[in-house]
Amino acid sequence: MAQKIAILGTGSVGRTFAERLTSLGYDVTIGTRNVDDTLVKTKTDSSGNVPLTTWLEERNTIRLATFTEAAQQASILFNCTKGDASVDVLTAAGAENLDGKILIDVANPLDFSNGFPPSLSVCNTNSLAEEIQRAFPSLRVVKTLNTMTAALMVNPALLVGDHAVFVCGNDEGAKQETAKLLEVFGWKSASIIDLGDITNARATEMLLPIWVRLYGKFKTPIFNFQINTDAAGQ
Amino acid sequence: MAQKIAILGTGSVGRTFAERLTSLGYDVTIGTRNVDDTLVKTKTDSSGNVPLTTWLEERNTIRLATFTEAAQQASILFNCTKGDASVDVLTAAGAENLDGKILIDVANPLDFSNGFPPSLSVCNTNSLAEEIQRAFPSLRVVKTLNTMTAALMVNPALLVGDHAVFVCGNDEGAKQETAKLLEVFGWKSASIIDLGDITNARATEMLLPIWVRLYGKFKTPIFNFQINTDAAGQ
Repeated sequence: MAQKIAILGTGSVGRTFAERLTSLGYDVTIGTRNVDDTLVKTKTDSSGNVPLTTWLEERNTIRLATFTEAAQQASILFNCTKGDASVDVLTAAGAENLDGKILIDVANPLDFSNGFPPSLSVCNTNSLAEEIQRAFPSLRVVKTLNTMTAALMVNPALLVGDHAVFVCGNDEGAKQETAKLLEVFGWKSASIIDLGDITNARATEMLLPIWVRLYGKFKTPIFNFQINTDAAGQ
Repeated sequence: MAQKIAILGTGSVGRTFAERLTSLGYDVTIGTRNVDDTLVKTKTDSSGNVPLTTWLEERNTIRLATFTEAAQQASILFNCTKGDASVDVLTAAGAENLDGKILIDVANPLDFSNGFPPSLSVCNTNSLAEEIQRAFPSLRVVKTLNTMTAALMVNPALLVGDHAVFVCGNDEGAKQETAKLLEVFGWKSASIIDLGDITNARATEMLLPIWVRLYGKFKTPIFNFQINTDAAGQ
């Protein structure tokens, strides 16, 4: 039986994961706060996403459910919400439905209240991933993929040549399962950099300020960080 | 006549620039707070640097002077001080000796008060480079090279393959002169990424948290960030 995955968040990042995971044979449920409220929307949103109803019509194996229902039946959850909503969404899903499960946190605590480029609502001595881990101690939080655009997260082959994906979290088993999923997406084992425990999310979330500026400069989100470690003469 | 450059800071970063710039034909003066106090030291410091007296004996074209004297005679200054000392050092150099000059700021506001890894003493909506620029409005501050170890700053060929150096600042002419110096060090023009005005220093200084963690992981500082922009099928 296909592994059951819950996607928290109905925006472009959540949809990108839902579609890719479905095409790879996973059983995907997208979670939302209120299914009826979500399905009744008929307008393209401010980010250019078509109404979810329309999107789901063309992808009839992807289910829509409440955060609670999506979390209940899944073994792995993806946090594809906006950073300032993440803890609220997980609270709505219910701590009892998160116990022992893996949360792959790809969100960032971006603060657009002063326009572009955004600042971070939490950073330096704290991070979104740590806030989530503290709020849900028995959830196995793995921070990864948050340092690139969604299309690259699920399909690294969109870039020629090597580029890096960072992973951190307190649970070794959860990181290993996450790494397997990353390899299913197409990530090379050598490109997966395990930084250690969840406090290292500070470092990866703090890559966002330069990411948004490079996006502004390049006018395309199809780029990623690579770490050159190829010392001359070795 | 050789261009006169002042190096502010007598630690390993300052020495790396002084030695490299001298070997490239520049006229280099290292600035320090009190020349006699610096020269009287006879012990290797906590970072493993030999006493400056010993170091200078083997490099007799490099002068040592006060911050004031070093700044007075130079057209370009390198800020190689610790971030928490930078504004104090420039104040000691004297605003009247900085007017219209280029400061290449390679420092970072690292806070080691809670051990390793350090946090940043300023970030997110502010940066060290902006603090320097605000304190000395007629100084032409260019932030660059702060995202890698000193040996790579002055000799990018220590890594095989491409890697990036970010530049930002409010003065276009100062950035152009800085880019020329970077190319003298061996940086390829295509590797120099101009992010825009000095507020972009927030983004490059915020790379330090992941840099220090990667250093901890790799056990060598000889690595650098590269931005992969090579989209497939283009």
